[in-house]
Amino acid sequence: MARLPLPLPAMLLLLLAVLSVAAAAATSRPHPLDPLSPAEITAVRAAVLASPLVPARPLAFHYVGLDEPDKPDVLAYAYGGGTARRRARRRPLQRRALVIARAGGQSHELRLEVARNGSSSATATVLSHAVHRGAGFPTLTLEEQFAAVALPPAYPPFVDSVRRRGVDMADVLCAVFPVGWFGDAGAPRRVAKMLCFVAGATANFYARPIEGVTMVVDLDRMAIVGYRDRVSYPVPKAEGTDYRAGKTGPPLAGPQPAPGVVVQPEGRGFHIDGNIVRWANWEFHVGFDMRAGTVISLASVHDADAGTRRRVLYRGFVSEVFVPYMDPVEEWYYRTFLDAGEYGLGLWAFPLQPGADCPANAAYFDGFYAGQDGKPVSGENRICVFERYAGDIAWRHTEAGFPDRLITEVRPDVTLVVRMVVSPGNYDYILDWEFKTSGSIKFVVSLTGLLEVKGTPFTHADEITADAHGTLVSENTLAIYHDHYVTYHLDLDVDGTNNSFVKNVITTRRNTGDPATGGADTPRRSYWTVRREVAETEADGQVDVDAGPADLVFVNPGKKTRLGNEVGYRLIPAGATAASVLADDDYPQRRASYTKKQVRVTPYSKPEKWAPGLYADQSTGDDGLAAWSGRNRGIRDEDLVLWYTLGLHHIPYQEDFPVMPTLSGGFELRPSNFFERNPILRARPASTHGHSANCSCDA
Amino acid sequence: MARLPLPLPAMLLLLLAVLSVAAAAATSRPHPLDPLSPAEITAVRAAVLASPLVPARPLAFHYVGLDEPDKPDVLAYAYGGGTARRRARRRPLQRRALVIARAGGQSHELRLEVARNGSSSATATVLSHAVHRGAGFPTLTLEEQFAAVALPPAYPPFVDSVRRRGVDMADVLCAVFPVGWFGDAGAPRRVAKMLCFVAGATANFYARPIEGVTMVVDLDRMAIVGYRDRVSYPVPKAEGTDYRAGKTGPPLAGPQPAPGVVVQPEGRGFHIDGNIVRWANWEFHVGFDMRAGTVISLASVHDADAGTRRRVLYRGFVSEVFVPYMDPVEEWYYRTFLDAGEYGLGLWAFPLQPGADCPANAAYFDGFYAGQDGKPVSGENRICVFERYAGDIAWRHTEAGFPDRLITEVRPDVTLVVRMVVSPGNYDYILDWEFKTSGSIKFVVSLTGLLEVKGTPFTHADEITADAHGTLVSENTLAIYHDHYVTYHLDLDVDGTNNSFVKNVITTRRNTGDPATGGADTPRRSYWTVRREVAETEADGQVDVDAGPADLVFVNPGKKTRLGNEVGYRLIPAGATAASVLADDDYPQRRASYTKKQVRVTPYSKPEKWAPGLYADQSTGDDGLAAWSGRNRGIRDEDLVLWYTLGLHHIPYQEDFPVMPTLSGGFELRPSNFFERNPILRARPASTHGHSANCSCDA
Repeated sequence: MARLPLPLPAMLLLLLAVLSVAAAAATSRPHPLDPLSPAEITAVRAAVLASPLVPARPLAFHYVGLDEPDKPDVLAYAYGGGTARRRARRRPLQRRALVIARAGGQSHELRLEVARNGSSSATATVLSHAVHRGAGFPTLTLEEQFAAVALPPAYPPFVDSVRRRGVDMADVLCAVFPVGWFGDAGAPRRVAKMLCFVAGATANFYARPIEGVTMVVDLDRMAIVGYRDRVSYPVPKAEGTDYRAGKTGPPLAGPQPAPGVVVQPEGRGFHIDGNIVRWANWEFHVGFDMRAGTVISLASVHDADAGTRRRVLYRGFVSEVFVPYMDPVEEWYYRTFLDAGEYGLGLWAFPLQPGADCPANAAYFDGFYAGQDGKPVSGENRICVFERYAGDIAWRHTEAGFPDRLITEVRPDVTLVVRMVVSPGNYDYILDWEFKTSGSIKFVVSLTGLLEVKGTPFTHADEITADAHGTLVSENTLAIYHDHYVTYHLDLDVDGTNNSFVKNVITTRRNTGDPATGGADTPRRSYWTVRREVAETEADGQVDVDAGPADLVFVNPGKKTRLGNEVGYRLIPAGATAASVLADDDYPQRRASYTKKQVRVTPYSKPEKWAPGLYADQSTGDDGLAAWSGRNRGIRDEDLVLWYTLGLHHIPYQEDFPVMPTLSGGFELRPSNFFERNPILRARPASTHGHSANCSCDA
Repeated sequence: MARLPLPLPAMLLLLLAVLSVAAAAATSRPHPLDPLSPAEITAVRAAVLASPLVPARPLAFHYVGLDEPDKPDVLAYAYGGGTARRRARRRPLQRRALVIARAGGQSHELRLEVARNGSSSATATVLSHAVHRGAGFPTLTLEEQFAAVALPPAYPPFVDSVRRRGVDMADVLCAVFPVGWFGDAGAPRRVAKMLCFVAGATANFYARPIEGVTMVVDLDRMAIVGYRDRVSYPVPKAEGTDYRAGKTGPPLAGPQPAPGVVVQPEGRGFHIDGNIVRWANWEFHVGFDMRAGTVISLASVHDADAGTRRRVLYRGFVSEVFVPYMDPVEEWYYRTFLDAGEYGLGLWAFPLQPGADCPANAAYFDGFYAGQDGKPVSGENRICVFERYAGDIAWRHTEAGFPDRLITEVRPDVTLVVRMVVSPGNYDYILDWEFKTSGSIKFVVSLTGLLEVKGTPFTHADEITADAHGTLVSENTLAIYHDHYVTYHLDLDVDGTNNSFVKNVITTRRNTGDPATGGADTPRRSYWTVRREVAETEADGQVDVDAGPADLVFVNPGKKTRLGNEVGYRLIPAGATAASVLADDDYPQRRASYTKKQVRVTPYSKPEKWAPGLYADQSTGDDGLAAWSGRNRGIRDEDLVLWYTLGLHHIPYQEDFPVMPTLSGGFELRPSNFFERNPILRARPASTHGHSANCSCDA
């Protein structure tokens, strides 16, 4: 539930108290897509532990999340008119949970029915149980990572390694790194590797790796089962690595921007009702999941001209974040992270700082998740929502063609941002959804945080004679080349469930001179036109956006405008269109083969959520997006899902050290013949100084 | 000079009056790159008209602009230390003007020396004169366009055409369209075409073309010399085309964003001294030119760590905007605009609306230019400058690796935007320069305004059986496919004048298993590394940014960081990377052949400013960027200029009608080993609610 973190005058507080009694009845009706509440998580835990289906102990909860109701039921609930709606509302949709637990050396999948008894109590019943027989393991828990990193200081070979490098063990910190998969034969064990670093005088221990050591920990046995100290390199110095205020050296003496704050004299323009957000012409549901983080569902836009609300997106979330490093050496070759599936984006989201991560006018959502023991944990301020006044323009025109007057019409743009920040170790990912009154949704990923660096003897680039696989960013510090691929699962339902994927291919034509073939008897020699290709099967739905110019449109083949154009939304990349260049037979590439093309389109299938497959840790690529779409299913006039992968090749530079200034990329989903005309044609002009007349804000 | 458009309390007014007396002496020392002042324009006019070198009359001024001093002199003035600086400051640099005038059926180039006598008077002397013997004509004047469009209502064939279409001549408006060049033999005449439209009940006459008519006007004779009424199509209706508030139908009844305004409790953070802007760690000069509009010069960033100011950009501006349409028919084939060279971006910039085009906290620059008669014209509020508080993050990190505490550091981002809007007819181009304290400059082009449409008998897409070369966006209204190419001239001087252009090519390698060849004995099969290619000649400097992954870096080969990395800035495209697909032998493509690659690098040469050449109207492509760089000059360790062309293929959609919601694309120039470390590492954290403690802004 959203909280307002700013203080309220007493009158407003009283009013709110009065209203909240009235609202209690309304907000106590949860939405079928709401994340599991603490009471529901508690009930799920109890039911799992009480079930005779998984007797082995200890039992660790690796994933607990909403197993959302089937799509037709949710659509009927949200959009079904008349009798269906009343029926759906009388009997709330059955709530279900999915649990992935480890016990007895196996991964167990349990599906449960969850029933709420009021707002603070619930009961759950196990519906089904299966043991995972395929490759891969579930997301790592926070607790087992903290348990694992407590092992090295008591492990004699590591004590030796530390002592040999002249490091004080009290300054050492370790972190758990997934091993990936490299074709190992035989039954895999649930192992991970651990890398250790030196904190000491700095908080930035990532900048001070104990290089050359490989440590393997068996997470099920919670014991170190492999160790190699291959080579000793200097530990980079602490000086210059810290990023904490007051620890970075003298305070900034130079000029800087003036302080400023957005003031909303009439209060906020958005309304939060439970997990539903309503703003301007948009309405959507905000959910939270341990693995995906923010989930945006049932996003619809009100068409003022038509007088109806129209569907755009059923369910959207970040499905995976693939981050392969580019050094083949022993201690680096396996760093090929799948941050959502191995670590969990929701698990590694942390509290947003008001006035810094999000501006003063933001509201916040908490995120509840389950700990390894299955008990609910409250994640404060995981998602924020705010109106952005960036000074942008929504549309304008100055008309100088009239001889007697100049006409100018300008409409400033105010947008709504839904933000989450995920910090899965060294990197920070700022993940924004930006809703515009024009009907567009802009997605922006901003990278910041800390580089992963390798200790090296080099203190100057001139000393480097062979490929160092990275940039020397500080003395004894190589920042290794790597990629980031952020894959979005976007179940677009453009004005309805069944859509088609159309490529409007920009095609050059010679002027034949003959109107019968599109030409004309003029000296113009060429032009481009549009060759419209409707994707029939999944093979047609795989697109390299940089291969050739085309507009990529998701249309509703059953809906046309009054002029006969198919209603649609198009995808417009905005930077970060890198695709993976790893060899197709390379193991990390096999596990994330979908990263060779930015766009993939599949027919909707509820289990198909996670691009590398359900079990990402040590996955082999046999499950997941590439495997599913390899079946080449039909995607014409079907319920479609867009998988868009935003990619960046990262050659590090010294500016990225010790912490990186944000680097952003994204894409836009933009209405394309969705509306009969510009949907904000009738937007209200700004008042004289851009704010309402009764504000005493004049500076 | 910048003006503050907001009212000031009386006390402040008094203070300002006192200060202005003191400042008068300071601001009366103009900068050598300042645009010509009204007094200087007046003096230039007088000198030209008095000169015996151009006796023919009438004489029309088509271009009057600063012919800036030679680069070494400007650099010595701006950055020369010690004796050179004092010397340069004692004797102000000679000011010069370039005039392109038409007289006697010829284009005359005059260069003049201009001497200021105080702030309100000047004298000018003609230094040189030449008659243009090559192809092409200068920018059209506003006055001749208004004179030309007054001709059709008195031209009998046009009167007939209008009557036959059932249109009232009183509602008719015409506009002048350049003819381009299509291989005509013989001596070209300075003609243009005119297209006419019906206003009447709407201001959006572009939506109501009188289709099928071609009218040729001789601009030198100011007479219609060609006419053809080839075919008559319905004039689209006025209903639904207007965009003026109150004329678009019922006011917006639906929910919309809350009003909001940025409040700066300590006032602005930027300082304007004449045409110099100083903000945070940036300093630059803002100029204005009839053809380019905004000119940013001498942009340098203060390096707090080094304690010095360091150069980034000598001079940057939009060099050309190429907008070819894709219908080969008689009335459309020649619409292949070069908006800067044919119309003039500065000439077609209009007053920015405070609180709408720019937020309430903006300051403004006027732009002075010369009319056709050579007299100065004041262009109010052509450029605005404002601090943007978009709620973005400059850098952050949350560290969860310590078992006993969570560390979070966040620095919010405030940037400085310099904005101009150009409306050369139907389109509006919002051209933003965004300066970041991280040292980046982000360039954003936002398209909005009105589509160019073609009258057609069709009222439904099903009626269209052949290639219509466009989208039916309203009844009887086809919006024709077209492209936009916005070319920036950016004379980067990265930490000094001589730079090299380096491509850090992302190159896949197999793991050889052998450290001697970059490999390692691990199961990893592939990785990418960087193959560094230094461009030797201009051929190497032509890059298709979508052809293959590479970081494109402008380095200073004479400057390295302490770690031995070459100091540089890299170019990061952010959407809008379309390149032209027209045939190489097609006439418009020959005139703008540089649009086949987004990146071109040339050695600095002062006359090389305008991508299609100095004379763009009816240019033939024999001059301009492609011709210059075809000489394949050396670009290694030279004074370089980056020409970056942002491109968009525009398939229109109904949302673009009657006025288009903004569509944006851009690119970033980002420091890359320019700084020894993150230059904003020591940025001040935000105070608790993101604004300073003494603000009474809590909402």
